Amino acid sequence: MNDVADNTNAAGRPMFDKVALIGLGLIGSSLAQVMRRENLAGHIAGATRSESTLRRAEELGLCDSYHLDAAEAVKDADLVFLNVPVGAMGPVAERIAPSLKPGAILTDVGSVKGSVIRDVSPHVPEGVHFIPGHPIAGTEHSGPDAGFAELFENRWCILTPLKGTDEEALNRLTAFWKATGAHVDTMPAEHHDLVLGITSHLPHLIAYNIVATAADLEEVTESEVIKYSAGGFRDFTRLAASDPVMWRDVFLNNREAVLELLGRFMEDLSALQRAIRWGEGEKLHELFKRSRRIRREIIEAGQDTAAPGFGRR
Amino acid sequence: MNDVADNTNAAGRPMFDKVALIGLGLIGSSLAQVMRRENLAGHIAGATRSESTLRRAEELGLCDSYHLDAAEAVKDADLVFLNVPVGAMGPVAERIAPSLKPGAILTDVGSVKGSVIRDVSPHVPEGVHFIPGHPIAGTEHSGPDAGFAELFENRWCILTPLKGTDEEALNRLTAFWKATGAHVDTMPAEHHDLVLGITSHLPHLIAYNIVATAADLEEVTESEVIKYSAGGFRDFTRLAASDPVMWRDVFLNNREAVLELLGRFMEDLSALQRAIRWGEGEKLHELFKRSRRIRREIIEAGQDTAAPGFGRR
Repeated sequence: MNDVADNTNAAGRPMFDKVALIGLGLIGSSLAQVMRRENLAGHIAGATRSESTLRRAEELGLCDSYHLDAAEAVKDADLVFLNVPVGAMGPVAERIAPSLKPGAILTDVGSVKGSVIRDVSPHVPEGVHFIPGHPIAGTEHSGPDAGFAELFENRWCILTPLKGTDEEALNRLTAFWKATGAHVDTMPAEHHDLVLGITSHLPHLIAYNIVATAADLEEVTESEVIKYSAGGFRDFTRLAASDPVMWRDVFLNNREAVLELLGRFMEDLSALQRAIRWGEGEKLHELFKRSRRIRREIIEAGQDTAAPGFGRR
Repeated sequence: MNDVADNTNAAGRPMFDKVALIGLGLIGSSLAQVMRRENLAGHIAGATRSESTLRRAEELGLCDSYHLDAAEAVKDADLVFLNVPVGAMGPVAERIAPSLKPGAILTDVGSVKGSVIRDVSPHVPEGVHFIPGHPIAGTEHSGPDAGFAELFENRWCILTPLKGTDEEALNRLTAFWKATGAHVDTMPAEHHDLVLGITSHLPHLIAYNIVATAADLEEVTESEVIKYSAGGFRDFTRLAASDPVMWRDVFLNNREAVLELLGRFMEDLSALQRAIRWGEGEKLHELFKRSRRIRREIIEAGQDTAAPGFGRR
């Protein structure tokens, strides 16, 4: 992807001397692997709260040092990633703050940016550059085993820098993400939370909800739902298999945007319901025709495959 | 998959002497291709209403004879498939009825069974065996080019035989579907329409709806929706790229089941909305945890892939 030489400084050293990963789930593990491949860190320090996760990360050889105490992991780190559920960002920031090196870049990968800024900012020491971020990449799998170096390739990473952010720090973090294969955009946190509300949070909510509706039917057995799921239902179960703690925190912390979008979704659904009840075929047809163009544009933008059924086997 | 010898009768001939396919879209084209592979028909007669579709089918070499008049295609056929949108089933049945051979099996692949029985039955001549069917298989692509011989492999085909259906005819149709690689279930039409309502119709409706909601937002541009669609939204656009005429007809013809299920979905969604508004984290977490099991069972039943992100590239 990237020439290794691009990611070393003049002295031939890696892009960052020491990077700390707080949290080694899908994203943390993928970051560790792409950092190795692209020579982005001289030393990778990994920290998890769970002993078994840390042991598994060690078995996989993801990092250079392993820590149960996040404060220990961030010592002397030039770049610190918070890869924990958004509800845990505040407490983790508070814990590591006294150990952060002056001049370090502190960033995160949380799916909500407003709440992370609210919860983390108060703990950030003078001289530490806090730049919130969010790579729009993932799978339905969780934990260190789920990570892979190609996760960020051709995906977008959104940074939501605060007013007065140090330009050099922003450039260094941008370069880091580009080296992972990602494209980088910047935007205000509030706009991020609305955009991701529609492209990610609402879809997950809807997916969780339809799986629940199906599971609770009295007249249709679970075995029937499973056998005939290739009719469309199975697609939703993938999103609904995502990490439950991560998603609980997303909905609790992006409440306003999600409720606003959910309100619009329900309005639109009521209109569809009415069109079905009154047999308004032309209205349904017009609405259904619109969607194909958006699908085509997503494929043209390299954000999904053109292969039928996602090319699944 | 199946030994060719299994699909020939004692005299070494194909399973059916002549099969007529009325409609050569995704399903009709796939039927033609699997019939060739498995030696299921001595002669395949194809009919479409559109001249350009018929020409394309001919270029692809799908059939042995090509007809713009469905009545002509069904002459002397032992097995006739109606592969048209469910709203067109009645008119097509009326058109072909006088040309059907006594003893022939007449079946269909429509996604709704109650309405097809209502619309087709009145036209079925004495001595013709009408056995409604529905293979739970498909992709988001349409037309003769979208078909492939493996479409039905390890998918379920549901037959909804009417009271007094000839047992031998039912056995022959069952054997046909098994030869395509499908599993076969039988159930009452009304139950089919409810089961497919939850496993297929409601998921498509929800997918069409969220794409519309996203397209109509003022604060988020379409370009943003497309760029960041890997957050989950892109999954929905696949279902929403399905054939608009087919789906219009499904909703118009399975109205009662869809409205009932949609009512339940909206109730559940209102409960979720309330849980988010009031910050009920435990309730959200419990609900989200349930879905993983259903996803796992779908994978164990061979109805989806375990590969992350459907294994898409």
